[in-house]
Amino acid sequence: MSGPGQKEQSRETAILLISCPDAIGIDAAVTNFLSSHRGNIVDFDQHVDKEQNIFFLRVEWEMEGFSLSKEKTEAEIAVLAKPFNMSWSLRYSSAVPRMAVFVSKQPHCLYDLLARVQSGEWRVEIPLIISNHQDMEPLARRAGIPFFHIPVSRETREAAETRQIALLKENRVDFIVLARYMQILTPQIIAEFPGRIINIHHSFLPAFPGAKPYHSAHARGVKIIGATSHYVTEDLDAGPIIEQDVIRVSHKDSVDDLVRRGRDLEKIVLSRAVWRHLQSKILVYSNKTVVFG
Amino acid sequence: MSGPGQKEQSRETAILLISCPDAIGIDAAVTNFLSSHRGNIVDFDQHVDKEQNIFFLRVEWEMEGFSLSKEKTEAEIAVLAKPFNMSWSLRYSSAVPRMAVFVSKQPHCLYDLLARVQSGEWRVEIPLIISNHQDMEPLARRAGIPFFHIPVSRETREAAETRQIALLKENRVDFIVLARYMQILTPQIIAEFPGRIINIHHSFLPAFPGAKPYHSAHARGVKIIGATSHYVTEDLDAGPIIEQDVIRVSHKDSVDDLVRRGRDLEKIVLSRAVWRHLQSKILVYSNKTVVFG
Amino acid sequence: MSGPGQKEQSRETAILLISCPDAIGIDAAVTNFLSSHRGNIVDFDQHVDKEQNIFFLRVEWEMEGFSLSKEKTEAEIAVLAKPFNMSWSLRYSSAVPRMAVFVSKQPHCLYDLLARVQSGEWRVEIPLIISNHQDMEPLARRAGIPFFHIPVSRETREAAETRQIALLKENRVDFIVLARYMQILTPQIIAEFPGRIINIHHSFLPAFPGAKPYHSAHARGVKIIGATSHYVTEDLDAGPIIEQDVIRVSHKDSVDDLVRRGRDLEKIVLSRAVWRHLQSKILVYSNKTVVFG
Amino acid sequence: MSGPGQKEQSRETAILLISCPDAIGIDAAVTNFLSSHRGNIVDFDQHVDKEQNIFFLRVEWEMEGFSLSKEKTEAEIAVLAKPFNMSWSLRYSSAVPRMAVFVSKQPHCLYDLLARVQSGEWRVEIPLIISNHQDMEPLARRAGIPFFHIPVSRETREAAETRQIALLKENRVDFIVLARYMQILTPQIIAEFPGRIINIHHSFLPAFPGAKPYHSAHARGVKIIGATSHYVTEDLDAGPIIEQDVIRVSHKDSVDDLVRRGRDLEKIVLSRAVWRHLQSKILVYSNKTVVFG
Repeated sequence: MSGPGQKEQSRETAILLISCPDAIGIDAAVTNFLSSHRGNIVDFDQHVDKEQNIFFLRVEWEMEGFSLSKEKTEAEIAVLAKPFNMSWSLRYSSAVPRMAVFVSKQPHCLYDLLARVQSGEWRVEIPLIISNHQDMEPLARRAGIPFFHIPVSRETREAAETRQIALLKENRVDFIVLARYMQILTPQIIAEFPGRIINIHHSFLPAFPGAKPYHSAHARGVKIIGATSHYVTEDLDAGPIIEQDVIRVSHKDSVDDLVRRGRDLEKIVLSRAVWRHLQSKILVYSNKTVVFG
Repeated sequence: MSGPGQKEQSRETAILLISCPDAIGIDAAVTNFLSSHRGNIVDFDQHVDKEQNIFFLRVEWEMEGFSLSKEKTEAEIAVLAKPFNMSWSLRYSSAVPRMAVFVSKQPHCLYDLLARVQSGEWRVEIPLIISNHQDMEPLARRAGIPFFHIPVSRETREAAETRQIALLKENRVDFIVLARYMQILTPQIIAEFPGRIINIHHSFLPAFPGAKPYHSAHARGVKIIGATSHYVTEDLDAGPIIEQDVIRVSHKDSVDDLVRRGRDLEKIVLSRAVWRHLQSKILVYSNKTVVFG
Repeated sequence: MSGPGQKEQSRETAILLISCPDAIGIDAAVTNFLSSHRGNIVDFDQHVDKEQNIFFLRVEWEMEGFSLSKEKTEAEIAVLAKPFNMSWSLRYSSAVPRMAVFVSKQPHCLYDLLARVQSGEWRVEIPLIISNHQDMEPLARRAGIPFFHIPVSRETREAAETRQIALLKENRVDFIVLARYMQILTPQIIAEFPGRIINIHHSFLPAFPGAKPYHSAHARGVKIIGATSHYVTEDLDAGPIIEQDVIRVSHKDSVDDLVRRGRDLEKIVLSRAVWRHLQSKILVYSNKTVVFG
Repeated sequence: MSGPGQKEQSRETAILLISCPDAIGIDAAVTNFLSSHRGNIVDFDQHVDKEQNIFFLRVEWEMEGFSLSKEKTEAEIAVLAKPFNMSWSLRYSSAVPRMAVFVSKQPHCLYDLLARVQSGEWRVEIPLIISNHQDMEPLARRAGIPFFHIPVSRETREAAETRQIALLKENRVDFIVLARYMQILTPQIIAEFPGRIINIHHSFLPAFPGAKPYHSAHARGVKIIGATSHYVTEDLDAGPIIEQDVIRVSHKDSVDDLVRRGRDLEKIVLSRAVWRHLQSKILVYSNKTVVFG
């Protein structure tokens, strides 16, 4: 399934993400490069981590009027990058990312993701949905998206992941969204999609990692609950945080109330994180994220 | 120091706090008691913890027109309480609570507390300020409040607390506010003021308990930071939470920024908790709080 | 379409809403009535507007064990109500409300409402969707809900409403949700559903009523935008407010960004308001609401 | 009164603010200028208003190691600015701004401002406090700040402002903070301090401008209240907004509760705005602000 996308009519842009040791002259080098080829910058965000002395840049410019071909652009950026020891990546707004969704039994995040794609709010392709349960199959079918039921148990986890990876590759998936997928991933699949698996955890991490966070929050008597979207790493619920949000609760809220009210938090926080990922607004380092606004 | 208080002109009220096993007829018994003596209820809040089957009530009524003397009121409530096995407490709005403030070197919470009392926003008496450092002495002096410098080291902790307790008793202190007091209390003083020591911790508990929470929050890359006010128990930073609040942060915020921005959170969260305590709006059970609105 | 509902398995309750002039003895009368018939109260919320001297009560009790039949309950409440001059209404949790949805071209609120019903998060029946455009017909069809396209122009507004009212009555609709329905209702339909039409307005009312609030917010340079759900009255965007929420924006947000980010606000705020309405948690007076927590 | 300031020990920086018509090459020109003189950029924020085609830049660099004198820096920036038609301003972090505070009877904002300066949280000089009432004189005296009581009535407004302006000039005041100063300023004083008078209004503007906003908010039954800090212009409560924040309220909150709870909002929102102003993080255009993070 693919939404028409809001930006279809908008002009194509190139998006360059850079990180490198901080140094005098990086800005000048990049902006000189773009201005010398008539690149009209539409967005320019930079950040310097002073403690670690790392420079981060996201620059987006219009392709219309830009005097370099895409091939030459790549080549020239490579030349530019060398003296500064830049890590960099380049993508074009015309490319439609391919997103796999993993889900278990809870439907609310999946509904929200599908609504955004179906309504054209997001410009992304969902080639498949994978689940360890069959509950969401009808929803996937109504949306016209292939659904793969791959049960997972302790014994079959490895085989299940092997099959998942095969399906993901077959479908040329760019990144994975875990929409309340209640299984732990192994290093196998994480290594295949490093920094490209987005999870939603139903607590304000690092508080209440692991199972049943709403029960723990209720037992602890917190006055605010949260949800956290992060990239998945090998450490459970400990990957780089992309987005968090919270709501106020009180002694009147039972565990069931927290679960119910938390659902809205979860779906909104997850969708904000996916949106930032789709826009290439996120840079990861030291188990943290730079998320440009 | 004592502020004139906003409620000085307002009519005296009685405030009854009740907790007991839930049962049919509690509401009826209490409201019958009040209506039979012409008690005009100005606030009535109840809560039932369904899991633990505990009933909580805070009822406030005007003394003007109430047909019972204070003495008889106590006696009749005792009679009322018996069949329901109620824990209860009664106080009158005319009583001015006496609050001790403990502080170390950070001034922002102390400034905020003093401003509320000096300006008459709160009706409370501060008979003394105790600190393990001398930094805040000039501020206390300007406010006209006796300041006691009681240094604390691992070796002197017990003796220091003994002296603190003597001062607190001498000054007939009702409750203690730890306004960024950076010392761990021992069971000795906690036992003297059970449920009557309010602390502010500079994180969104239970995330980042203990020392240097802003450093930990920065290292973890959270997108939201918080502050938590709670009653002190023997478990460090694990007592019943009264109030929490949060602010959004980003990759742009250094540890120093978190410290700076957190100060406002801390002072506001602490003051909200103290305000609720002053109003007798808090009931504690199972290491949690019922905080009526 | 009807969701199975979360509460299907839970025990039936009765919900009594009361408002009347404040007086001594109301609480006692109501709680005596319930306790004398063995009514186990599961929720009890009261509020007194001190300025206007009005008393509000919502009390919910379990039908299991309650010793009165539904018929007799109504009769006895009528007797109870008389001396206090109570306005009151009584409903049972077993009744499934029937909700009509009006929509125009924007789909996000409709998607969100449908997801909640389809997934069983809400226990409500949607017998029909009415729109002045055809865009949402496929979505309604996929959800299996009858869709009525009723175009509206200045000239046809009255005739259109007459047809709408006929459809609503035919379908025994209890209340109407305007899910970004971009037409002004006339007094005709409002009179048919007083206090039973819920709208979502895409601003923080009373700021920016009327058309294009995001454009106005952007022009004014506000740092926070909001959404407001309210009951519809004859005064445009001026009815009793049920729920509001906000998000922080900045100079970086274009009008398009506000529109995009506002969509999430709108759908969540609308759904919270509908949820409170479904739970009979709202009392309306003086163009304001009491919304119990 | 002057606080020691947190940044005293930190290295001196130069802060350059630029706005001009957007064009290719601005970034390159500025960053080339700095890198050619070994300017180590510590903060670089830019924004482009796409609709109005205006470019905004705030760049901060260390003076240590920068190879130009302050005099030459000004001269070279002037040369740089010309072809791009830049408006620009340059200041150094070593300069301590001089801030006048205007206040009436409400003390909470003044207390908060003074605490920040006295405690060294802010690095700013307060040479005088002006008030139309005498209530705050003791507080000013305790803080050791000259206090001027200048009563204002409709008839004396002009003469009062003339005296205020004389005092402000005499004291070489850089900017003015209206800390709940309940008088309308005339164009006379506004013209003397354009974009340099910061007000706090106790509502979420543009809702409830003018007098008694909490009464209006209560009458309208809003579920959220706010406070707004803005630069003063000739249009009452309609100047460029710097900062806003909100808190959730309910039917339980009386007007007095809104007033009480709003005080914390007001003082925090005002202080955030002043802090941004002190850091030269604000650019004003089209009655809006760019506030860099």
